[in-house]
Amino acid sequence: METAQVWIGGTWRAAETTGEFQAENPSTGDKLPRKFPVSAWKDCDAALTAAVEASHELERVSPENIARFLESYAGEIEKAADALARAAHEETGLAIKPRLRDVELPRTTDQLRQAAQAARDGSWRRVTIDKERNLRSCLGPVGPVVVFGPNNFPFAYNAVSGGDFAGAIAAGNPVIAKAHPLHPYTSLLMAGCAFEAMKASALPKATVQMIYHVDPETGLRLVSDARAGATAFTGSRAAGLTLKRAADAAGKPVYLEMSSLNPVVFLPEGLRQNAQKWALELADSCTAGSGQFCTRPNLVFLFAGDAAETFLHEVAAAFQGREPHALLAASVQERLGESIDALRSAGAEVATGATALPGPGYRYANTLLRVPGEIFLSKPEEFMREAFGNEVLAVTVTTERQLLDALGHLEGNLTASVYSAAPGSSASWGADEALYEKVAPALRRKAGRFLNDKMPTGVAVSPAMNHGGPYPATGHPGFTAVGFPAAITRFTALRCYDHVREDRLPEWLREDRV
Amino acid sequence: METAQVWIGGTWRAAETTGEFQAENPSTGDKLPRKFPVSAWKDCDAALTAAVEASHELERVSPENIARFLESYAGEIEKAADALARAAHEETGLAIKPRLRDVELPRTTDQLRQAAQAARDGSWRRVTIDKERNLRSCLGPVGPVVVFGPNNFPFAYNAVSGGDFAGAIAAGNPVIAKAHPLHPYTSLLMAGCAFEAMKASALPKATVQMIYHVDPETGLRLVSDARAGATAFTGSRAAGLTLKRAADAAGKPVYLEMSSLNPVVFLPEGLRQNAQKWALELADSCTAGSGQFCTRPNLVFLFAGDAAETFLHEVAAAFQGREPHALLAASVQERLGESIDALRSAGAEVATGATALPGPGYRYANTLLRVPGEIFLSKPEEFMREAFGNEVLAVTVTTERQLLDALGHLEGNLTASVYSAAPGSSASWGADEALYEKVAPALRRKAGRFLNDKMPTGVAVSPAMNHGGPYPATGHPGFTAVGFPAAITRFTALRCYDHVREDRLPEWLREDRV
Repeated sequence: METAQVWIGGTWRAAETTGEFQAENPSTGDKLPRKFPVSAWKDCDAALTAAVEASHELERVSPENIARFLESYAGEIEKAADALARAAHEETGLAIKPRLRDVELPRTTDQLRQAAQAARDGSWRRVTIDKERNLRSCLGPVGPVVVFGPNNFPFAYNAVSGGDFAGAIAAGNPVIAKAHPLHPYTSLLMAGCAFEAMKASALPKATVQMIYHVDPETGLRLVSDARAGATAFTGSRAAGLTLKRAADAAGKPVYLEMSSLNPVVFLPEGLRQNAQKWALELADSCTAGSGQFCTRPNLVFLFAGDAAETFLHEVAAAFQGREPHALLAASVQERLGESIDALRSAGAEVATGATALPGPGYRYANTLLRVPGEIFLSKPEEFMREAFGNEVLAVTVTTERQLLDALGHLEGNLTASVYSAAPGSSASWGADEALYEKVAPALRRKAGRFLNDKMPTGVAVSPAMNHGGPYPATGHPGFTAVGFPAAITRFTALRCYDHVREDRLPEWLREDRV
Repeated sequence: METAQVWIGGTWRAAETTGEFQAENPSTGDKLPRKFPVSAWKDCDAALTAAVEASHELERVSPENIARFLESYAGEIEKAADALARAAHEETGLAIKPRLRDVELPRTTDQLRQAAQAARDGSWRRVTIDKERNLRSCLGPVGPVVVFGPNNFPFAYNAVSGGDFAGAIAAGNPVIAKAHPLHPYTSLLMAGCAFEAMKASALPKATVQMIYHVDPETGLRLVSDARAGATAFTGSRAAGLTLKRAADAAGKPVYLEMSSLNPVVFLPEGLRQNAQKWALELADSCTAGSGQFCTRPNLVFLFAGDAAETFLHEVAAAFQGREPHALLAASVQERLGESIDALRSAGAEVATGATALPGPGYRYANTLLRVPGEIFLSKPEEFMREAFGNEVLAVTVTTERQLLDALGHLEGNLTASVYSAAPGSSASWGADEALYEKVAPALRRKAGRFLNDKMPTGVAVSPAMNHGGPYPATGHPGFTAVGFPAAITRFTALRCYDHVREDRLPEWLREDRV
């Protein structure tokens, strides 16, 4: 079988390679047959040059034509839905139905269509006009955007089809997609849909380009090249921080979604009333998709006592009663095991799980760990370790002070949740309310999205969503990776027009808007 | 005379010092009598701890009370206007009238009042409500903001009274002001006004704090401390990049205004018609305030020929006919001389000036340098050097290709301007128009503010202003340091509320806005 081609400068062609690779089926552990190239710098260089040209041409393309491309792309994805779902299942182990075919794929096409709508209505531009001073400003494209996709959402976060892609294109930027090397064939099929949509579009031919894999140094060179406008990355903290250093040093905006513990606090009176119900909610949130969501709870806090024991017993029972799905890759299984071992070494006890499951494929037992608040507080850094997969660590505190001290140690997160008793649900619901007043402020600043009585998994594509948060959850606390038009603004620069003649202004600045 | 006190934790107290310093009168070269402390880390540490506490308390302060403080502060500044103008004149050499007393001081109070208005109306929050999903988002405070003020605007950019200060406070953040060590007494008087306004306000006592000077390592430690929320800096590229490295490594947002060449292109037909008029505009722009503006043109481009010679002759004549004012400091004079020497070494010819003037005080002759396009293109990096002061370098190109190649080398700038013939002003005005179509796109992406037929100095405090631009003019192309509400958003984090109970939401998210 021939090595797959890269999509550079408007055409599919053989890559300039430093090597090649094959993906694996994580449900079976078998190597998949297709060969994909590891691109050398020459491919990146060619893509950057073509992207700069496309970037200039895109300035003259109407928003309507950008919108039509995104919509037509969504249509092509729908036509190829079954093949895409099969490929993604084969490469990631995620279920074809409902997950890939009926949830993630519609979400992906919805994102493309929402981005198209924002491109068309210009809501992302933040047009501001000062007639008196003849001063006008709006956001405009930032230049070629390099997108690094993660493995846990092979469609919705794919570098060539996900939210970063849609946002960058909507603002009039070309995208250089660096596909995730664990699902290259899915990315190839997806890019094929984009290629079809491009053919019928009015966009410059290098508006979309894709490579599969690069050496780490080549990746750093790519994001810090003078021709790059900005970078979007979703993945591990280690890889994200390395890219951040390179992009920061070059003065290039970089948007990273890196890691998050997504703390959940269960207040005592509510827990007394709802131990079973909440336990099931937590178990659902931690086992869906084998827990491989950026917003899965890693760390939950509750007060030691009977209700906590009931709750933990129920979570453990639910964990034991569910057959774990395959993890995304051998490396995910390995790192999950390492993290769980590290948490155990620090002093966490195993309530259930904590063992890799026998093959074929890469699975790990649903794992509930627990640790008393005083031990957590003795070395919080060791317990605040993300374990990517179907795991959760419960911290049982004995005093309010312990809880608040523990929360004080948290770093930036994508989400933070508080569960508490419903108003009037018991004589002592007010006790939760009083505690909430202390817990909520401690959590609010440490998370992009703050929830009440709800698990953080499930990220609606809404204008009011924030899928972002303070460092190290992301690289900047002011931006969201999900939700239009806000997610688009990551890939923009502020442009002011001072005393510019009317006929030379972009169309959207000509009419009075203020 | 006693060493001045720092303002930390709500009170004036003796600094924990590593040394002390005195400012100088740059008009005379005389040392000024007052002694000011160089703060040790202990002062920064105390300020950070107090700021974190203030930051939490500010979450419960109404926007109205924040607005009132800013307005009351503006009032105090007006009461102290004469003393402030005298002090600033003594420390910076800038003219009392009109500059300090009648231009910069009213601009400063106007900024505080505009920020107050934005705090009150909440326009900076970008409230977004998705009722259907019970999902709400808005911008909120980012935490303690460290502000480093520059020397060229002792009021309007002062760390304790300028635009960064006003923006940070308006969003509900405490400010740790690091005054510029070349105008410490002005900063002390200004902080005195803030102190008066604070006394009558409902704000936490450590909402405003001020120190005068720190060692470089202490400054880096300050911006990268876990307790800091964000940093704003206006000053040299070297200092800015050092702070950026420290803040980036700590994952802290940092907003920098560092350096800009502010290119101006004069198109040939317009120049033929307007050589004298445009020459005077350029001379005015380059000599006002001894050229010590971030938006002063450093680099102008024009086509070689008779019109260019007339233009350059007029600029030189105007430069020679104006008595240079004092520069801000001996160091400014020294660096200006170094930059001009470097430009000459690279091959620029002196049309006029290029010499430091004899004392007392620090002055430099108004300087016009020129260089042919082909020499510029032979080593563009050497000619793209900011010379902070009353200087400008004219590049005379012979072909359109030369011009576009030269513009292609430009880095990010705060501004870029194109002058061209007025429509119908001559039979060949269309030639400028055709050239504009090529020049404008080449400049648009390299500048935050793009102008027609206008000098870039003069930065209106308008919602439509962008005083920002691509790196290395600033650290992020999406933000402006001037203009409300946009400038406020630098000091914010995006906060989403998911399924949060109605009575627990901030007031501004309770009503329906979408």
